[in-house]
Amino acid sequence: MSISHIEHIGIAVKSIDEAIKYYEQVLGLKCYNIEEVKDQKVKTAFFKVGQTKIELLESTDPEGPIGKFLEKKGEGIHHIAFAVKGIEDQLKQSESKGVQLIDKAPRKGAEGLDIAFLHPKSTFGVLTEFCEDKKLK
Amino acid sequence: MSISHIEHIGIAVKSIDEAIKYYEQVLGLKCYNIEEVKDQKVKTAFFKVGQTKIELLESTDPEGPIGKFLEKKGEGIHHIAFAVKGIEDQLKQSESKGVQLIDKAPRKGAEGLDIAFLHPKSTFGVLTEFCEDKKLK
Repeated sequence: MSISHIEHIGIAVKSIDEAIKYYEQVLGLKCYNIEEVKDQKVKTAFFKVGQTKIELLESTDPEGPIGKFLEKKGEGIHHIAFAVKGIEDQLKQSESKGVQLIDKAPRKGAEGLDIAFLHPKSTFGVLTEFCEDKKLK
Repeated sequence: MSISHIEHIGIAVKSIDEAIKYYEQVLGLKCYNIEEVKDQKVKTAFFKVGQTKIELLESTDPEGPIGKFLEKKGEGIHHIAFAVKGIEDQLKQSESKGVQLIDKAPRKGAEGLDIAFLHPKSTFGVLTEFCEDKKLK
């Protein structure tokens, strides 16, 4: 496995407008991008914190994954995303070691990254994302 | 506010011995430190991932904070810790902006850091830690 760093931490919020105020005015971070990911039924807001990003996730559909998460668990940390090289191989390797995959093949996520999720049942309760920026060589 | 990076992500697990196997054998990270924090009733295991650390937290007492978290929510991400400069001032500034503090003054955490927690009620559901390594100048 070749994880270089934590690419981002995904946090589910009811309203990104409200949460952005806290991240900017209290924590002093700067929102540099707001983007809708229709496939995931979310609106996202990004902040850089050193090498890592915080990705706020607001649901655009109560039946989407973040809508369901918010209903069940309320606002809070949703997932951790690790930056990997060779995401297809990393998924295969993880599956061969007994990890249950949510995505058997990568798909497009926010910011043009290739992303795939591992099931929290086999990752000690942590919804875990692999992501790769194939624009970087 | 002067946040430089995410110092660590705290993850509650039932058994650090079991979870270490996943982080090492599947994710390829290396546990470099295991430490008991008696004050917090936890045993911790640390992994470096780029600039950030993953801190696994196993409860040593069902009445401690991680014991209660595990009983209520199960295994999963417990908190995010931001590295700050001047932790006392950052706490005061946050409180003046309406954030409810769990720790009004810093105390000693794992790895000799000064730490303090903000209440998730005022941080959009994310248990948030500030920490400062006063050995670094």
